[in-house]
Amino acid sequence: MKVDGKPMRTIWLEPDGWSVGIIDQTALPHRLITARLTTLEDVAHAIRAMMIRGAPLIGATTAYGVCLALRADPSDESLERACTVLAATRPTAINLKWALDEMVAAVRNRPRTERTAAAYRRAAEICEDDVAINTALGHAGLPLIEAIAAHKKPGERVNVLTHCNAGWLATVDVGTATAPIYTAHDKGVAVHVFADETRPRNQGASLTAWELGQHGVPHTLIADNTGGHLMQHGQVDLVIVGTDRVTANGDVCNKIGTYLKALAAHDNNVPFYVALPSPTIDFALADGVSEIPIEERGAEEVATVTGRTADGRIETVRIAPNGSPVANYGFDVTPARLVTGLITERGVIAASRAALAGAFPERAAAAE
Amino acid sequence: MKVDGKPMRTIWLEPDGWSVGIIDQTALPHRLITARLTTLEDVAHAIRAMMIRGAPLIGATTAYGVCLALRADPSDESLERACTVLAATRPTAINLKWALDEMVAAVRNRPRTERTAAAYRRAAEICEDDVAINTALGHAGLPLIEAIAAHKKPGERVNVLTHCNAGWLATVDVGTATAPIYTAHDKGVAVHVFADETRPRNQGASLTAWELGQHGVPHTLIADNTGGHLMQHGQVDLVIVGTDRVTANGDVCNKIGTYLKALAAHDNNVPFYVALPSPTIDFALADGVSEIPIEERGAEEVATVTGRTADGRIETVRIAPNGSPVANYGFDVTPARLVTGLITERGVIAASRAALAGAFPERAAAAE
Repeated sequence: MKVDGKPMRTIWLEPDGWSVGIIDQTALPHRLITARLTTLEDVAHAIRAMMIRGAPLIGATTAYGVCLALRADPSDESLERACTVLAATRPTAINLKWALDEMVAAVRNRPRTERTAAAYRRAAEICEDDVAINTALGHAGLPLIEAIAAHKKPGERVNVLTHCNAGWLATVDVGTATAPIYTAHDKGVAVHVFADETRPRNQGASLTAWELGQHGVPHTLIADNTGGHLMQHGQVDLVIVGTDRVTANGDVCNKIGTYLKALAAHDNNVPFYVALPSPTIDFALADGVSEIPIEERGAEEVATVTGRTADGRIETVRIAPNGSPVANYGFDVTPARLVTGLITERGVIAASRAALAGAFPERAAAAE
Repeated sequence: MKVDGKPMRTIWLEPDGWSVGIIDQTALPHRLITARLTTLEDVAHAIRAMMIRGAPLIGATTAYGVCLALRADPSDESLERACTVLAATRPTAINLKWALDEMVAAVRNRPRTERTAAAYRRAAEICEDDVAINTALGHAGLPLIEAIAAHKKPGERVNVLTHCNAGWLATVDVGTATAPIYTAHDKGVAVHVFADETRPRNQGASLTAWELGQHGVPHTLIADNTGGHLMQHGQVDLVIVGTDRVTANGDVCNKIGTYLKALAAHDNNVPFYVALPSPTIDFALADGVSEIPIEERGAEEVATVTGRTADGRIETVRIAPNGSPVANYGFDVTPARLVTGLITERGVIAASRAALAGAFPERAAAAE
């Protein structure tokens, strides 16, 4: 999507043809900084430190992590070590595991001399596939927004609420939850986004609001507590969120707090949609609440906030009293019963075992 | 309650016998600073700037605002002006209007020479009544916690989730939502509190966690997004929140985000209680969602966060991109259907018109 009026992606090969460029998302929204990754360790650090985040982008970056490991050492041991190191960076993201499986399959039976080139080819494909899938999500979700727009009076906008960042910054480009929004906006449909700030890491404030603003999409930043009130007062037409993992039953694991917005949407008859590229589906799991491991992160993410001072310095300030313990769960699970529909690259389907298996029979069969 | 091991209140008469001391709550949790209020304007500023906040404490402070106005000028015009100025400070708090009515009734038919003394007497009564009511809330709510404790295994704690600060810092002392918690803790019941940080102003992080810590109550600070996940996993035994206004129907207006926690509690069969001193009941209103005006506050509360740097400076940092619009609603309304019970100074009652009118017939009759 556009930054300062020019198209940009979140990850790219540098002109040297092998090192990997990324946007360091920890510096947004205040500074646009890029980083160059040259080793497996660089990639693992970038994922762990959330310089890149978002399930699809984690997958793409993971793929390039394998490339860099094989470029340094194309042995089986190096491949295994890369998988071990990368798999440990973020336990909740199914795309990470998916990308590792894809990369291993692409290089396993090849001679060592061919492995690096094969890995780079597959990583590039994973990136292009992500953009193609997200473009398809945009076209699949567009009619949902157009149908609401058709009932608006002149001058009224379609109000979409989203949580966290499932925007182009969470993918290689276009985004998942934002795909229908960008598609509608670029087509001239009047759309406005309520962006949850998404504590504790504020991805909504620092990433979603930033990317919507850069692309010119009207939006309003709100505290995470606000969505229920807005829905009670008819100010939200639909909710679209992304996801880190969807079970075979249609349960949706996404950034902590998503479940609360799904409850509010259900209570106010506001449609609640989840946009997902199919690699996010985990057909090996059934019940999301009991089966998906939820990442716990450090206390400092809740106890402190980082931002820009009035005179332009980046500072971290503590908001909690000294000595107060903190709990920091990264994700929650929204039961399928609260999900109006899943926006996939093969169309909008119900959040149910039958619909998921029907739309992705090859994936469902492979998991059996 | 205790600060550094010594009892303290949120508001007091200074040794001069007329000026009013308060804790400047905007400096918490990093510094304990007190302020001395000597004029009506001091009081209005303290309320507007949220140096003091919380419905009962707003009521008590408002009462002293009338005292200071009458001390400077005991005329009817001065009394009217005080009411106008104070009523405009926070539109949602019913206690503010209640306290003004009480003060006007206490001085209206008196000669000017007696008005100031009468006002100070009534203000002191309002403070003592608040403490007595909150003590009664504690005794009324204690059995709810004890009943859960009775079913815990040895070493297990009763887990209470609360939102915002309805602690002693929101009242003259003891608190409303915290009253049953402090009463149980002081009696030796093992209780642990999950404190929502409560964006955008972080009253849970800066006030609730601080006062619980000062009094020695075990607690854990969490992002507002977390409560649903905790409830899904059986980590919350009950929710107790305060309120700024309860309608005759039992609809509960409280800090923005309360409604989302009520939905999560309902979805997970977690009891959801609201602790309220009876001045918080507004028998003139029926439907909370449509009838209660919701205060909108400044964008900077969402766009920025204030805290303490590692080297001890207080800094305000911006988390939002430049140019992103912000919406900042202060409260939401939890419909009575989601409320398990109301903890009042006359016992725990249902959140219904019949139960409220039954428990407070003199208030209900006066509103007709």
